[in-house]
Amino acid sequence: MEQVKVFLSEEDMPKQWYNIQADMPTPLGPPFHPATMEIATPEQMNLIFPMALLEQEMSPQAYFDIPEEVMQVLALWRPTPLQRARNLEKALDTPARIYFKNESVSPAGSHKPNTSVPQAFYNKAEGINRIATETGAGQWGSAMSLACNLFGLDCTVYMVRVSYDQKPYRKSMINTWGAEIFASPSDQTNAGRAALEADPDMPGSLGLAISEAVEDAATHEDTNYSLGSVLAHVCLHQTIIGEEAIRQMNSINEKPDVVIGCIGGGSNFAGLTFPYIREKINGMAVDILAVEPASCPSVTKGVYTYDYGDMAHMAPIVQMHTLGHTFMPPGIHAGGLRYHGMSPLVSRLAEDGLLNAIAVPQLDCFESGLLFAQSEGIIPAPETTHAIRGAVLEALKAKEEGKEKVILFNLSGHGHFDMSAYDAYLSGQLSNYDYPKEMVDQALSQLPTVELPLMD
Amino acid sequence: MEQVKVFLSEEDMPKQWYNIQADMPTPLGPPFHPATMEIATPEQMNLIFPMALLEQEMSPQAYFDIPEEVMQVLALWRPTPLQRARNLEKALDTPARIYFKNESVSPAGSHKPNTSVPQAFYNKAEGINRIATETGAGQWGSAMSLACNLFGLDCTVYMVRVSYDQKPYRKSMINTWGAEIFASPSDQTNAGRAALEADPDMPGSLGLAISEAVEDAATHEDTNYSLGSVLAHVCLHQTIIGEEAIRQMNSINEKPDVVIGCIGGGSNFAGLTFPYIREKINGMAVDILAVEPASCPSVTKGVYTYDYGDMAHMAPIVQMHTLGHTFMPPGIHAGGLRYHGMSPLVSRLAEDGLLNAIAVPQLDCFESGLLFAQSEGIIPAPETTHAIRGAVLEALKAKEEGKEKVILFNLSGHGHFDMSAYDAYLSGQLSNYDYPKEMVDQALSQLPTVELPLMD
Repeated sequence: MEQVKVFLSEEDMPKQWYNIQADMPTPLGPPFHPATMEIATPEQMNLIFPMALLEQEMSPQAYFDIPEEVMQVLALWRPTPLQRARNLEKALDTPARIYFKNESVSPAGSHKPNTSVPQAFYNKAEGINRIATETGAGQWGSAMSLACNLFGLDCTVYMVRVSYDQKPYRKSMINTWGAEIFASPSDQTNAGRAALEADPDMPGSLGLAISEAVEDAATHEDTNYSLGSVLAHVCLHQTIIGEEAIRQMNSINEKPDVVIGCIGGGSNFAGLTFPYIREKINGMAVDILAVEPASCPSVTKGVYTYDYGDMAHMAPIVQMHTLGHTFMPPGIHAGGLRYHGMSPLVSRLAEDGLLNAIAVPQLDCFESGLLFAQSEGIIPAPETTHAIRGAVLEALKAKEEGKEKVILFNLSGHGHFDMSAYDAYLSGQLSNYDYPKEMVDQALSQLPTVELPLMD
Repeated sequence: MEQVKVFLSEEDMPKQWYNIQADMPTPLGPPFHPATMEIATPEQMNLIFPMALLEQEMSPQAYFDIPEEVMQVLALWRPTPLQRARNLEKALDTPARIYFKNESVSPAGSHKPNTSVPQAFYNKAEGINRIATETGAGQWGSAMSLACNLFGLDCTVYMVRVSYDQKPYRKSMINTWGAEIFASPSDQTNAGRAALEADPDMPGSLGLAISEAVEDAATHEDTNYSLGSVLAHVCLHQTIIGEEAIRQMNSINEKPDVVIGCIGGGSNFAGLTFPYIREKINGMAVDILAVEPASCPSVTKGVYTYDYGDMAHMAPIVQMHTLGHTFMPPGIHAGGLRYHGMSPLVSRLAEDGLLNAIAVPQLDCFESGLLFAQSEGIIPAPETTHAIRGAVLEALKAKEEGKEKVILFNLSGHGHFDMSAYDAYLSGQLSNYDYPKEMVDQALSQLPTVELPLMD
């Protein structure tokens, strides 16, 4: 029998997270406060985040110990299997060897609990009773509900309405773990009510849902805000994926030529690739490929500049690739990739040439996602089909070139709660959205202006 | 950190299935042909089953080698983790140690692919092009679609209507793996049309859906029938669960005092427990506990006798615990447990005192299922909540007695496609069904009469 999966025992699970800020050639620009337009201080951000996470957010320290209590919860499903996609290789008739890190095995069905668990832990440790958060496709809202449930915190989720309607059972899952959920725009916040007033049929956006959750947290003393992507501490927590993958690939004497993830806010991509980017900075020959949707292409078509993290100017202003914080992406099924901006870390690394990005159309992603489901069995989340599409393109290139390339991608989540997307695809009801250039141009005309301090 | 999961490497995966017919104190009575009322011959059954499976069905041979091609597909997700439910133990404040075998990690979400894969393989090997099958909650239909897809067979699924309506995304999953699906009763078969004529709003039953699938197979030359439970070869294929569990428990020096599974047709229960019953026959002190729904209690309230396997008298007549083949169980959410009969092997072992059975009400199961979801993360299938309920009852008994009992149960599947059941439970819309005694008495008055040959 040919080996398919590479397990790692619990005792070999990485015990530290890796902070790429220690090794980046160019440091991040500071975040700005959306009200004062001055550099945001940790004290200001402590209104909605615990100090422990802010410390991780801004630290140049290369490694952080994973707390014992967090490790114990992660062990419910970690280490996740590394898996060789032999059937997909055969289906593509490629000389490439394709591996994926199977993050779909978590109880919430994606990589998201890797950070929701430590976020719940640190908030609980600092006396917080409730978390408010947003969710696009529902992966993050599920993950945060699960983590809050396990640490005894209340949880309120604002879910982008278009996804809320497309994926009704995400709500059930979130309720099963004891959290409450509202479709966003909701009538629970000023930001939501204003949006509903402007357009009662608004499909919502991650940018707006973030506004609602941040407002909820900022206006309730016992409540903090929690973000499932974009921020540095989120990327930090996700690096356990890549640290495990390196150990697993080493154990079978493999070395990837290219490492691939999909990007929306950037967290699953960061999780798998940042440890490999560390190796790349240290001399390893490896390509890093980020795959984004053609309808929301922040890195490939956006501008690298300072912009608001959300629609209603509640979240900090950060330096990143953005399509403009007022941009409302088309209602593609990969709801988790419908964000106007990008992780500042991912953006900075792209600017510094440490990773490449491509944008792919929705139909191509579902074609590759279906091929994966029919060859490997696992039905991927619509977001994840972007990473699969990237891997398929690399495998076909390897075939053309006759090269024994080693491809590693992040299977960030399963699609069990996204089956309406497959229904739509199989019945020919899905289409590719053109790149909405005019809307983006309009959004990019509304960027904030911040004054950068003089660099030493 | 305290260990949670016990992995087994692919190379340590069991290479043989265990056939409990080799060790049973009392052999099974022969199956009868539903038309002739004579003992059914392999040649007759070959009309709808491949010879390789019939050989396994009737053999006294203790072990069968698992074909290499089957092993290779099973390795997509096997060996499955053995997991300690430490959080559940804490929630129950029990001195018991609770372990579960996590069969929910298969691409179809349950133990079912353990047998759909070899069934597809053997059918393909004997030149069959299409499989017709039925499904209750959808677990089996998904599993058979997956397996047919992987071996290049067409697949037609008849899904019990009440579940078809409750779990719409099972259809999407089955379509994603390239199979076609009809709600049963359907207009595709004589059995279905007759049922619709009698009652256009009929919720369907496993017994009727089986009739439709068997009729489809029997009336199409290139098509075979495939059953996801009840039969001996199905139980045989599932024993890989128990064989793995024994290796995993041994590797941590644990020995279960009680091994638990839910029963509908009996296959997931057989899979985990038959290897342990072999050990029990060989002197191991272990209790075996089968948990069935109070609304469809074939072992605890049924009769041990010969009955039809299906409603329309298409399937063989077998000796088993039955509530009568015309019995239409209440529409509980555990659709996979809504079968009037029971695996003849499980029934025989119950008669011989090698296992105990209990019946539990729907609400108790959901209560324990929710506790499990909130403590261990994984949201269990409604069927699986019955096994969890059994484990919880054992753990509470151990607490009362102050005993360090070791409990092992089969987490047969996840509930990602059953979330409407959780919605109903959480909103207080579920109820316990009384044991439908009158309907059962009525059904039991319609048993067939077969003439048993004189025993040597």
